[in-house]
Amino acid sequence: MSHVLHTSGLSQRSRWAADQAISFLMQQGVENPGCISLAAGLVDEDSLPAEPVRETVVTLLSDSASARSALQYGTTQGRLDLRGSLLDYMAAQEGVPRETLGYDASRMVVTTGSQQLLSLLCETLLDPGDICIVGAPTYFVFLGCLAGVGAEPISVPLDENGMQPELLEQALARLNELGRLPQVKMIYVVSEFDNPSGVSVSLERRKAIVDIANRWSIHNRILILEDAAYRDLRFDGNPLPSLLALDGSKEQVLYTQTFSKTLSPGLRVGFGVLPKDVMKPVLDRKGNEDFGSANFPQAIVTRMLKSGAFQEHVRHVRDSYTRKRDAMLAAAEKYFADIPGVTWRRPSGGLYVWMSLPASIPTGFQSPLFQAAVKQHGVMYVPGELCFAPVQGGRPKNHMRLSYGVQTPEGITDGMWRLSRAVKQVLAG
Amino acid sequence: MSHVLHTSGLSQRSRWAADQAISFLMQQGVENPGCISLAAGLVDEDSLPAEPVRETVVTLLSDSASARSALQYGTTQGRLDLRGSLLDYMAAQEGVPRETLGYDASRMVVTTGSQQLLSLLCETLLDPGDICIVGAPTYFVFLGCLAGVGAEPISVPLDENGMQPELLEQALARLNELGRLPQVKMIYVVSEFDNPSGVSVSLERRKAIVDIANRWSIHNRILILEDAAYRDLRFDGNPLPSLLALDGSKEQVLYTQTFSKTLSPGLRVGFGVLPKDVMKPVLDRKGNEDFGSANFPQAIVTRMLKSGAFQEHVRHVRDSYTRKRDAMLAAAEKYFADIPGVTWRRPSGGLYVWMSLPASIPTGFQSPLFQAAVKQHGVMYVPGELCFAPVQGGRPKNHMRLSYGVQTPEGITDGMWRLSRAVKQVLAG
Repeated sequence: MSHVLHTSGLSQRSRWAADQAISFLMQQGVENPGCISLAAGLVDEDSLPAEPVRETVVTLLSDSASARSALQYGTTQGRLDLRGSLLDYMAAQEGVPRETLGYDASRMVVTTGSQQLLSLLCETLLDPGDICIVGAPTYFVFLGCLAGVGAEPISVPLDENGMQPELLEQALARLNELGRLPQVKMIYVVSEFDNPSGVSVSLERRKAIVDIANRWSIHNRILILEDAAYRDLRFDGNPLPSLLALDGSKEQVLYTQTFSKTLSPGLRVGFGVLPKDVMKPVLDRKGNEDFGSANFPQAIVTRMLKSGAFQEHVRHVRDSYTRKRDAMLAAAEKYFADIPGVTWRRPSGGLYVWMSLPASIPTGFQSPLFQAAVKQHGVMYVPGELCFAPVQGGRPKNHMRLSYGVQTPEGITDGMWRLSRAVKQVLAG
Repeated sequence: MSHVLHTSGLSQRSRWAADQAISFLMQQGVENPGCISLAAGLVDEDSLPAEPVRETVVTLLSDSASARSALQYGTTQGRLDLRGSLLDYMAAQEGVPRETLGYDASRMVVTTGSQQLLSLLCETLLDPGDICIVGAPTYFVFLGCLAGVGAEPISVPLDENGMQPELLEQALARLNELGRLPQVKMIYVVSEFDNPSGVSVSLERRKAIVDIANRWSIHNRILILEDAAYRDLRFDGNPLPSLLALDGSKEQVLYTQTFSKTLSPGLRVGFGVLPKDVMKPVLDRKGNEDFGSANFPQAIVTRMLKSGAFQEHVRHVRDSYTRKRDAMLAAAEKYFADIPGVTWRRPSGGLYVWMSLPASIPTGFQSPLFQAAVKQHGVMYVPGELCFAPVQGGRPKNHMRLSYGVQTPEGITDGMWRLSRAVKQVLAG
């Protein structure tokens, strides 16, 4: 026999799973150790909650009943006490009493980060050839999930107020003309401080998107997948209700959020609120995948939500990221304002600044800019083109996603200076 | 629009995911609170390592470098330090120096329990219509994984020494005659203290199964999926090399194991050793599913393996389960020996005793026995028929899986007495 696994030894679906660009970026980091990464979406190491988690674990494991409950199997849906605390958390975020949320703990599921829930929802709801509408740009890992189930992303452009409802409506009308409306199953919306663009969807647009999804649910329900990963990292302005809160039926929106950005990615606790009829297939599938995410981190998060340790920690995290965001925007002003054709967004939260170069300057892995940035100037970013689904006329190639998550304010300033020198060098040709 | 999600709103694959029998069993437990469960595959609550985990976490989070490393994102493949420690653990289990294992940390992956790895391997390697050979009986949750990808399980009977090589060879020959050999992708073997039958595969048979898989890899490689979940729960006899250790090529066996049974299901840390060419597609898929299992529990397990706290704990756990196994076998002898046609296996490890009733006595959820046991006598078991893939002539219906995992020795004795009364009542008809 041959001990080589031929391509035919893999499942069809396995062949759809694309290489993760993230692996290439990590490799670049390893190969260029002096490089300042404005690419990584990791969180600030100094803000990781070592002390509060330690105190929580000591309390949790000192009592024999709570220790047992934390170290035993949980359930596929996630700890009931956590789902209860998450209702309070959602009520606080929405600014309403828990009783008026319109759903209960049976509608909540706990997952391994919100990533697992994004993946489960794609697996559960999308067949090959089905369509999911996404922003242009959008979260590039989610594009990998869609590819993994053979679904087709259709792009709708964002502006500074998020996905544009009139363009969403146009896209649906065009798909309808093409007879493809029945394949449209989902609209993916990063509602707050979008990865990568940093923008949030305005209140008016949230209402409009929910309305559009409802009105165009002609052949089948078009669900909105609301990814609120960065919701609790708001630095400025007033909180907005989620699309879920604006959905009167509570059957149109799949809501996902995570504690990876606000508390600790190492605990890897995400959650979602799902329509009743979607919950069962998601749990059936999750039962096959892992019959439940790690229970111990769930017990830790539960206790930190109840004790207020989470809420206190997230205030520190917000303060820290606010300073970093400010450092990046100040450095952008200082080093990029004099470069013609360079623009950037000013996020009110989250971890990312979206910067656009003149259309003639590509930013991709093989571009002169990326090569100069990494190899000569020692700075790394995420090429914007990774964040676009294929579009007519080709993906825009002149954007960069810049993250202020991991670097110190000084590192951010230094990184931005380095990047500006790389851009100027390439512009000078 | 209708707010009802029609069946057509779910993906094709979603419709394959079967109801988990486990949910039904849990429901029975909830509805019959006085019931002694000999069904649950949970672990002994008294043996959960509250104290060692607490000490480990305190040490881990007191040092700022190790705290950061534990609370930050990990990698999709799992912590490198854990994979290193797992090599030492594998070497200890195989009784060979680490250098002669024949693989390194690049061949190891860490998952959310071993269940996630079973699921990932099915997703990655099996297409609808593909065949996986399983034992009769076999782990019923794995049958759910196969159903979830539309693969077909073909049964090969076990006896007290595990899967029977001559019957495996016959099954492959028959599939070859039918022109179906190219669809055979995998042989699933629970090598130690099988769930549900309690049997281990003898050394001679391990060699024979590896040899058969190799010889029948004519059209494509037939992989052996070795599930060693209970390997470290050996009470009697000498350890055996894994099928992986017996595979000279190290490209025929997919090895999976978990710390859920030996340490804590709440930490939910499993791992595997995979052929090089299978690792990449598995990681691509895991990248989509969750880009890495929770890192914090991985850091805990790493430290416990290194400090010896794990090894010390597993000795306690083995002692505890040995007493429980003995209690169940003594109770079987005491209460069932006088019932004609009742037989049971004597496991040398693991968590299960497989008991067979006269062929005329069905044990399924709707059977008079199950109903009498749960409702009148207050005892619950797992009906054996759940553990069989569909077979010609129908699934055997007269077996029970009895677990001594969660009950105390006294509870086990009481449960066995109750069960014997239910059996006698049904036999008396």
